[in-house]
Amino acid sequence: MLLYRDDIIPQLHGEHGMANGTITAAKGFLAAGIASGVKVSGKPDLGLVYCPQGATAAAMFTTNNVVAASVKVCKQHIRTSRIFAAVVNSGNANACTGTTGLAAAKVMCAKVGKELELKPEQVLIASTGIIGHKLPIKKVTDGIAMAAAALSNSAKAGLDFAKAIMTTDNRPKQAIRKVTIAGVEITLAGTVKGAGMIAPNMATTICMITTDAAIKRKMLGRAFKAAIGASLNRLTVDGHQSTNDTAMILASGAAENRTISKPGAAFNAFSAVLLDLTTDLAKQMALDAEGATRMFTVEVVGASSKPQAFKAARVVADYDLVKCAIHGADPNWGRIICAVGSCGVRFHPDKLTCKIGGVIVFRGGRPTSFDRARVRKIMTQKEHTIWIDLGMGKAKDFCYGCDLSREYITINADYHT
Amino acid sequence: MLLYRDDIIPQLHGEHGMANGTITAAKGFLAAGIASGVKVSGKPDLGLVYCPQGATAAAMFTTNNVVAASVKVCKQHIRTSRIFAAVVNSGNANACTGTTGLAAAKVMCAKVGKELELKPEQVLIASTGIIGHKLPIKKVTDGIAMAAAALSNSAKAGLDFAKAIMTTDNRPKQAIRKVTIAGVEITLAGTVKGAGMIAPNMATTICMITTDAAIKRKMLGRAFKAAIGASLNRLTVDGHQSTNDTAMILASGAAENRTISKPGAAFNAFSAVLLDLTTDLAKQMALDAEGATRMFTVEVVGASSKPQAFKAARVVADYDLVKCAIHGADPNWGRIICAVGSCGVRFHPDKLTCKIGGVIVFRGGRPTSFDRARVRKIMTQKEHTIWIDLGMGKAKDFCYGCDLSREYITINADYHT
Repeated sequence: MLLYRDDIIPQLHGEHGMANGTITAAKGFLAAGIASGVKVSGKPDLGLVYCPQGATAAAMFTTNNVVAASVKVCKQHIRTSRIFAAVVNSGNANACTGTTGLAAAKVMCAKVGKELELKPEQVLIASTGIIGHKLPIKKVTDGIAMAAAALSNSAKAGLDFAKAIMTTDNRPKQAIRKVTIAGVEITLAGTVKGAGMIAPNMATTICMITTDAAIKRKMLGRAFKAAIGASLNRLTVDGHQSTNDTAMILASGAAENRTISKPGAAFNAFSAVLLDLTTDLAKQMALDAEGATRMFTVEVVGASSKPQAFKAARVVADYDLVKCAIHGADPNWGRIICAVGSCGVRFHPDKLTCKIGGVIVFRGGRPTSFDRARVRKIMTQKEHTIWIDLGMGKAKDFCYGCDLSREYITINADYHT
Repeated sequence: MLLYRDDIIPQLHGEHGMANGTITAAKGFLAAGIASGVKVSGKPDLGLVYCPQGATAAAMFTTNNVVAASVKVCKQHIRTSRIFAAVVNSGNANACTGTTGLAAAKVMCAKVGKELELKPEQVLIASTGIIGHKLPIKKVTDGIAMAAAALSNSAKAGLDFAKAIMTTDNRPKQAIRKVTIAGVEITLAGTVKGAGMIAPNMATTICMITTDAAIKRKMLGRAFKAAIGASLNRLTVDGHQSTNDTAMILASGAAENRTISKPGAAFNAFSAVLLDLTTDLAKQMALDAEGATRMFTVEVVGASSKPQAFKAARVVADYDLVKCAIHGADPNWGRIICAVGSCGVRFHPDKLTCKIGGVIVFRGGRPTSFDRARVRKIMTQKEHTIWIDLGMGKAKDFCYGCDLSREYITINADYHT
């Protein structure tokens, strides 16, 4: 298990000399992660974040028409002006569980409230795991008590939380950023669980971001929506959102910067570093997607509108034949062009240009005589870019994707319940 | 290699006592299939159909924005009132080949015309195979001469044609139907090449139907559009059409029935049997899709409109997680509900009902306590149905799909050019 990625360790040795790359690195937060027994494996399955001074908060949810009980409850609680805690359970998605499930989600928030002396609506909630199974509520409430007792601002506690939200993830996924705004150092930290499935179920993404920035709720919401929109919402693994997807950010204000209350330089600096953080998390998700061995970015430029650019980028990132070709490091421009052609986006083939890893492979309606060995080598890297100029206008957008491997099939076909 | 499927052999022993399950079974048609050398394997790669008396014809093409030279030329020639021949080459798609490719497609039709004393525009054309590679036109024109010399109405000649249009298909796919309309027996026969890819390329579907029915061009077009729309266009393997997809029907009139010239009983009978034939071919394609071990039908009822029903059916048939679950014979209702929920189709989860192989697995917002072993057994069959009632209205539609296996990845990732 990695505590944090090697390349970000240098950032972590700040003034306190302690390396903490977890969500407790932001001042004002305690966390815990424990095993409640919901997961039969006995692995950690319940995480708790606590902000004693209270935090401004923002959240984004799945757009699936079928949503889990936790999403229904969290959508209500996020309206509360100050949030003090968030609870996440894994191993059971509490989705398609009817009124019993909804009651269970409310009981979870009430139990957190009881342990930490909060109102239930001051607690956010997310669930991930098997759907259609009744949540073993006694195990969960006992687990919440255990987690409340274990709360700490240590790096271990933050890592425990990151582990507790995992399902089929191979490793905890964490990132941290520091930025100085008007002379005050602000920390942003986050963890995400990736597109893993537990039969008989589906991908669920849970993302938890903490920051010690002081920022008004409205501005936090705006920055978070933009950051998630350009990172987690630009990542496609199977092409669809689940019933449980939830991303949250809590801002404690403990950095004591001048509160960011309107657009301007401070807001822009905060927004940029938040996007950098969520992009890091999105890329970690892509690389840890089920069966994935590498990720890629599809950049589309020259589109007649931004939605057209995104549509073209997404169809390429979702196209199984492209994902297979990338798995095989095969510079298969034909599948890329075919994908773009199939999605209804306006362009003329003779004006389309396509690059793989910076090398032009298609231009003027036909392939170039590119160096296949060179492009293949680029494609064997952990990450590369497919760049497409539609030659229609000035709009651009992008999408992240990952390769499709036999392992994906193994995970999703062979592991029965 | 199968000459024809076992279950249709009994139909073939007609008045002549000869079993012919190929496109030459319809009176008035000769066919041939030869190896021109375009395929480096030396396998058959050029097919020719000839109707000496001329035929009314209809065709449908890919909706991809990027189309092959053959599609451009065929779209012009299909306007000709009587068609006498059709040429199909495999091994080279002649797509993304610029003006040289367009000229080559025209040369192919001209060569057929020269051999059979026809005008080029009386010849239809289709190509399938590698894209972005220049067509070796000398080999192709020499091949056309060989095919013209080999034309025959024998079953072997029909089978040769079916083999010549194959790419990564495991077997030739053929079907035949006979129907008596106003006392006259009419034959419809067809062959199709499936969703096979040759690296660095894409799926291409080529479908050739012959019939000895006498039917006006307009009515033939109408029946064909409806039949293909409800069969080949209801099949999804990777979710997208290629640059080369072409389906054609030629009607010789040699059965000497009273010409079908308007809607009515005769037209309806013809349309029904044509749909039955193309459905047979579509199902053969699904079962012979790359890596597929079984197929399934997604039936959606209770939708608020037919497009909504189709959208829901298609998203389920295209959803990789559903395809993996079917590969593993896992009655994974969660992935099905999640797919439907993700596609933007209007429904309320509490009103949705889902059956797998006739067994209700989900109703009233939650799973039923169904017999998993029984459903799993149904799912191991060659074909089963996922039935979804959205509970919103009276519209319905359907889609065919196939499972997703490791073999698909192997075919599409590991076989480089």
